[in-house]
Amino acid sequence: MGKNLTSRAEDYSKWYNELVVKSDLAENSGVRGCMVIKPYGYAIWEKMQGQLDKMFKETGHENAYFPLFIPKSYLSKEASHVEGFAKECAVVTHYRLKNAEDGSGIVVDEDAKLEEELIVRPTSETIIWDTYRRWVQSYRDLPILVNQWANVVRWEMRTRLFLRTAEFLWQEGHTAHATKQEAVEEAELIMNLYAEFAEKHMGVPVIKGTKTESERFAGAEETYCIEALMQDGKALQAGTSHFLGQNFAKAFDVKFANKEGQQEYVWATSWGVSTRLMGALVMTHSDDNGLVLPPNLAPIQVVIVPIYKGLDQLDAISEKVEPLVKELRAKGLSVKYDKRDTHKPGFKFNEYELKGVPVRLAIGQRDLENGTYEVARRDTLQKESVKADEVVDKVVSLMDEIQENIFNKALAYREQHVTEVDSYEDFKQVIEEKGGFVSAHWDGTSETEDKIKEETKATIRCIPLDAKQEDGKCMVTGKPSTQRVLFAKAY
Amino acid sequence: MGKNLTSRAEDYSKWYNELVVKSDLAENSGVRGCMVIKPYGYAIWEKMQGQLDKMFKETGHENAYFPLFIPKSYLSKEASHVEGFAKECAVVTHYRLKNAEDGSGIVVDEDAKLEEELIVRPTSETIIWDTYRRWVQSYRDLPILVNQWANVVRWEMRTRLFLRTAEFLWQEGHTAHATKQEAVEEAELIMNLYAEFAEKHMGVPVIKGTKTESERFAGAEETYCIEALMQDGKALQAGTSHFLGQNFAKAFDVKFANKEGQQEYVWATSWGVSTRLMGALVMTHSDDNGLVLPPNLAPIQVVIVPIYKGLDQLDAISEKVEPLVKELRAKGLSVKYDKRDTHKPGFKFNEYELKGVPVRLAIGQRDLENGTYEVARRDTLQKESVKADEVVDKVVSLMDEIQENIFNKALAYREQHVTEVDSYEDFKQVIEEKGGFVSAHWDGTSETEDKIKEETKATIRCIPLDAKQEDGKCMVTGKPSTQRVLFAKAY
Repeated sequence: MGKNLTSRAEDYSKWYNELVVKSDLAENSGVRGCMVIKPYGYAIWEKMQGQLDKMFKETGHENAYFPLFIPKSYLSKEASHVEGFAKECAVVTHYRLKNAEDGSGIVVDEDAKLEEELIVRPTSETIIWDTYRRWVQSYRDLPILVNQWANVVRWEMRTRLFLRTAEFLWQEGHTAHATKQEAVEEAELIMNLYAEFAEKHMGVPVIKGTKTESERFAGAEETYCIEALMQDGKALQAGTSHFLGQNFAKAFDVKFANKEGQQEYVWATSWGVSTRLMGALVMTHSDDNGLVLPPNLAPIQVVIVPIYKGLDQLDAISEKVEPLVKELRAKGLSVKYDKRDTHKPGFKFNEYELKGVPVRLAIGQRDLENGTYEVARRDTLQKESVKADEVVDKVVSLMDEIQENIFNKALAYREQHVTEVDSYEDFKQVIEEKGGFVSAHWDGTSETEDKIKEETKATIRCIPLDAKQEDGKCMVTGKPSTQRVLFAKAY
Repeated sequence: MGKNLTSRAEDYSKWYNELVVKSDLAENSGVRGCMVIKPYGYAIWEKMQGQLDKMFKETGHENAYFPLFIPKSYLSKEASHVEGFAKECAVVTHYRLKNAEDGSGIVVDEDAKLEEELIVRPTSETIIWDTYRRWVQSYRDLPILVNQWANVVRWEMRTRLFLRTAEFLWQEGHTAHATKQEAVEEAELIMNLYAEFAEKHMGVPVIKGTKTESERFAGAEETYCIEALMQDGKALQAGTSHFLGQNFAKAFDVKFANKEGQQEYVWATSWGVSTRLMGALVMTHSDDNGLVLPPNLAPIQVVIVPIYKGLDQLDAISEKVEPLVKELRAKGLSVKYDKRDTHKPGFKFNEYELKGVPVRLAIGQRDLENGTYEVARRDTLQKESVKADEVVDKVVSLMDEIQENIFNKALAYREQHVTEVDSYEDFKQVIEEKGGFVSAHWDGTSETEDKIKEETKATIRCIPLDAKQEDGKCMVTGKPSTQRVLFAKAY
């Protein structure tokens, strides 16, 4: 299998699209904007889900499931929410098809029109807060710490596999609290949980911060986010956690009796990450040879390829390899021994490089004689010969090394791509030529934000949580500012 | 908490509806026919998913994800398939809302009409076989053994929590094979896997069989099923596995080059179980006090309730209980120590009975003095006093005992409710008065089947796989028959 992959330097966007398809992660379907997540891609998503789900449960959250459909009138109840989503909603208007009277096929049965149209959920705040009204009477019913794993639909005009699809998979947490402080703490807890997941499991360094008012989630009072940087210098929002204030409680009339018996509106958060993380994973680590997967999320962590002539040699190799496979699996590793006779070793090497398998072992006649394996790591493409009795330890330690190395590599890239500027001219130059995050003073108005976006396509990715207070002047208007914010072009 | 549960004898259907809601499994939502699966119910579903997913993977299946939407034209490609589903389809016709010009609120934007309507998947054969066309060229690409966990929508006029809902959660397997034999074997493998899951994990005895032509899945050449019997004598189809022949391969033009280089159509299966299993679980084991859950699927397997006056007594009890909790957890058990001070022991006893927790331990002042626990099992409601140093072993063995006992109890009920009849008169009487499965001869025609259904509401649940060959006469027409089939009224 030749990889025939466009290089990143040649056309980053094309490289990404080709890689996602050729490495069997996903493909476009016959339905506009909707993707098919293929088994190899889905196996990575399952690992992400498994880890996140564990982290949610360890922090006291439970899973539940709410309806796919939202009555149109629900969506309208929170004013800024409906404004944010109305223009990208798939609308169900009928519940039946019938044979066309002219014999031309199957048509919508106009007699089966719904009294009220249903929206395919773009996010579930409205249907969930309609439910929470029934669940909450007293402070004893709080907090509610619920998450759901679900599909959602946002009708996007321009779609790209994983990064922007009409339907995507995600988790959405929706919590209800008795106090503002508790809700804010929950939103922050989740932002930190997302950051830990991104860094420790995906190997993707992220910057934590809050969104500006105009970039906030529709209906939120504060949006916390984690922002990652891709290899082409564009930012990608990897997860968001919203403090929703009492907006949805008011819209859906969700009150509780506090300890003093008084009625109060409930405080809310919502938070989510989606299959978009798959795009972030690919674009952070992969190279011109294919995927580079972090060991923590790789469906196959170790592949073993025999190099042989004739079945006698293969048998001799298998006799050595099969106990090794067992030993590695006993260490908790996911191992594949690929002894397919239909493909040559070179083809297999290419294939597993393309698929990002972290460690490849090869064993041929000479290794058999010397009692060695060739150990190749995917991240650096380095190879070395390792004695058979040391290979298990070597592979185990490589898992940590690779996980650490790809994170550090991405972190170094990110650190090289945060540029402080003090003039709008410098800003435009950096955005255009170097890319990455640009740290600059801004006067805090959405007018200035809009102007910058219009003129440079860069947006404020976040107001970083760790930003130091310093006196400065907005690079555009010269008005006073007390901290720098991070701009970038973004996915 | 008083349970206030209608008894099964009084009104079985009402008992079921009340129990599902009061035990916090699920509730109706504001969207017609769509349910909210509450955290406690979802935790059981997650356990079902986890076990099934493991069994699928152990038999070589992988997960993937296909689009929620199906273009109308796809659905039409397989003639009997569209006939089976067209009348219960949610249809997406538009992709945007807008503000009404008269200020009356949010309305569908007629300018945003889709060129081709999209169906919310009622099942995914069509979109998946459209995809498989791209995946299959040669015999080397086969078999494809793919499963997806997803939500589907079938517009039902009369809905009931878990048993029949407009939206439900399920898994659907879709496999592609080079030969007819291999596909038939796959369909049978899955039927057996479902039966094993139902019996060993849900504790629900099932009868394996095939459906008659008129009860087959729309587009199948053979439908294998597992049929369970509920406590009211009605049958419930708990899972189906379909041999689809080459119907979908032909409809979507999916061919492969065989080893001789000739083009052949691919052979298919599909199979699924859904959140309907939750209904089967509730209706098989539960009683007038609430749920009875099998230990293998219970989110909480053991609950410990302290009985105390004052916090000093509670502290003394907790000192004993906390190490016990650790010991039980180390055995892999899910344990809850409920020391809430806001509720009395009697309330808690009721609550955990209602929620079907398999084993309850209680410990009060006298137990503390005697070094004992009161151990109560949910299935038999028996209680006994057990020495503290024997309680771990006791609880561990109870898990197996309860799992086995509830299965045996359900099996005994089922065996008492399979009645052989040889005349239509007896048939009607048994169906009406005793219920359960009725084993009778049938002439093999759908006319007779329809007549029986119309006159008695009983349908042929299956042609049991283990039915012995015997000469007989159809109880209605007197025509010859070679084996008995199983009739029942069904959910």
